[in-house]
Amino acid sequence: MELYNRTQIQDVVTLDHAALDAVETGFRALGQGEVVQPPILSMAIEESNGEVDVKTAHIRGNDRFAIKVSPGFFDNPFIGLPSLNGLMIVFSAKTGLVEAVLFDEGYLTDIRTALAGAIAAKHLARSDSRRAAVLGAGVQAELQVAALRLVRDIDTVDVWARDTDRAEAYAARMRERFDDLTVNVHGDIESACREADVIITTTPSKSPLLNASHLPTGVHVTAMGSDSPDKRELDESVMTRADVFVADTRAQSETNGELKAWAGRTPPFEVRELGQVIASGQSPRTTRDQITVCDLTGTGVQDTAIAGFALTRLM
Amino acid sequence: MELYNRTQIQDVVTLDHAALDAVETGFRALGQGEVVQPPILSMAIEESNGEVDVKTAHIRGNDRFAIKVSPGFFDNPFIGLPSLNGLMIVFSAKTGLVEAVLFDEGYLTDIRTALAGAIAAKHLARSDSRRAAVLGAGVQAELQVAALRLVRDIDTVDVWARDTDRAEAYAARMRERFDDLTVNVHGDIESACREADVIITTTPSKSPLLNASHLPTGVHVTAMGSDSPDKRELDESVMTRADVFVADTRAQSETNGELKAWAGRTPPFEVRELGQVIASGQSPRTTRDQITVCDLTGTGVQDTAIAGFALTRLM
Repeated sequence: MELYNRTQIQDVVTLDHAALDAVETGFRALGQGEVVQPPILSMAIEESNGEVDVKTAHIRGNDRFAIKVSPGFFDNPFIGLPSLNGLMIVFSAKTGLVEAVLFDEGYLTDIRTALAGAIAAKHLARSDSRRAAVLGAGVQAELQVAALRLVRDIDTVDVWARDTDRAEAYAARMRERFDDLTVNVHGDIESACREADVIITTTPSKSPLLNASHLPTGVHVTAMGSDSPDKRELDESVMTRADVFVADTRAQSETNGELKAWAGRTPPFEVRELGQVIASGQSPRTTRDQITVCDLTGTGVQDTAIAGFALTRLM
Repeated sequence: MELYNRTQIQDVVTLDHAALDAVETGFRALGQGEVVQPPILSMAIEESNGEVDVKTAHIRGNDRFAIKVSPGFFDNPFIGLPSLNGLMIVFSAKTGLVEAVLFDEGYLTDIRTALAGAIAAKHLARSDSRRAAVLGAGVQAELQVAALRLVRDIDTVDVWARDTDRAEAYAARMRERFDDLTVNVHGDIESACREADVIITTTPSKSPLLNASHLPTGVHVTAMGSDSPDKRELDESVMTRADVFVADTRAQSETNGELKAWAGRTPPFEVRELGQVIASGQSPRTTRDQITVCDLTGTGVQDTAIAGFALTRLM
């Protein structure tokens, strides 16, 4: 049994095509019905404004599976600690013995989440997409763009965040990180999205931010902020306006993602799953003008895929 | 963050009154509504005849909570490995940071399971109980008796197991371990139970073994074998004959324990929970002649309680 810390893991796992392939392979297996993925275990620790989620999945025939434990304690920043944390435990799928504990402190979650956005864009966004609008200015606002550049030639980012100072700081970081990238800060969502080929929502919003009037013709939207029953980023009109709606998993989108808008009712559009789109080998986008939306809530198969990938590189 | 292995944990945690108090305190808090305990996360790895369960609970106000991961890979013995395994991760309930990983390989589960049996007997069995019938001859058949002796003056054990050689081996081990204990091996369940004050069922049976005709007047039954949807040890007649029926948690007894007999129907008797019995401060046994039954499926609060106790002793 081996232990690896965040630094060791960061040294070998980055946003690259090999990591993207690993996560995409996991989604494809999910779409082919080759994955056992139980519902998320979630527990609130109310007195500390905390919660802990446990996710897992097994890809049939794989030698390993991972269990991820993600605590989120949202008062931690007041005492100088990060809100998010966690570790992944990698087990042999032959014997159940622990092969490794990855004390990644949430790093692999950041990576696999960003890669899911890139995978969604790879299969849904126009191939000539160059301009991305980003709502939010946190870690995922950065990583989603970095991952998206693996699959699309993004040269311009239009950012909006509730706090303009944070948006400016984000723009400065992104210009520093990518010297070929133009980054514009916007004071409102409408202006940020006006010329977007891809819109990425990365906020912890509890009420819809983006509505149909913000959507340019032919845009692709990836909504990755909502991952719990109390969050939502997309107005219903975004989904009813879209020509194609894809969720990472329908069940999680209904409880934790954007399909909550139709709680208990059947949404008035077709719901596809990302793994099925990948497995089909055909993009559901058939014209340049169509609007596509992908809702990402985060799945256990991504964790099992990225943990297995990380361990292969670490060993 | 500290790591502890099985040997280190075995050195400080044994079946004693302090450990019993810790687990009983957990159950009491559960009975007082002071515990958050989400449903078990369970995943099958069919191609390896394996499964993995994740349990957790938080006792409100406690400084720590634990998440337990228990793989069970039932073909392991064919390659010289134990079927059961696992670890517990202890988190700060203030910050969500990992305080320790207890690589106990299932040892703490064995201990807290045995202690739950003792706690059930403490509150339900006649105080002058001296004779225990044990069905099954595995690890819990030993530990349940050892734990029961913390709360009742057991001087005789009557054991039955499907495999008589294993029952004889059990008897030899128990005589070696407890020189004041008489151990009798029986060829059938009826004879093993005939003079029992306490009956403990510890088998992985998938069909009922014990029925009402096996129950002496005034006996207490602890059924701890059934912990998954496919197992059962008690015939319905045991529960309808009993004067008092207690489950560790009703919901788990319905899915994983003996209340499965009434799947979807309301059982024709009152169902109490062990934590509520403890919290009430009053035994539901009011006469010597009553028959009491407790069904144990294993709860997350036991894991959080024993992990916190272990860490206190380890630090």
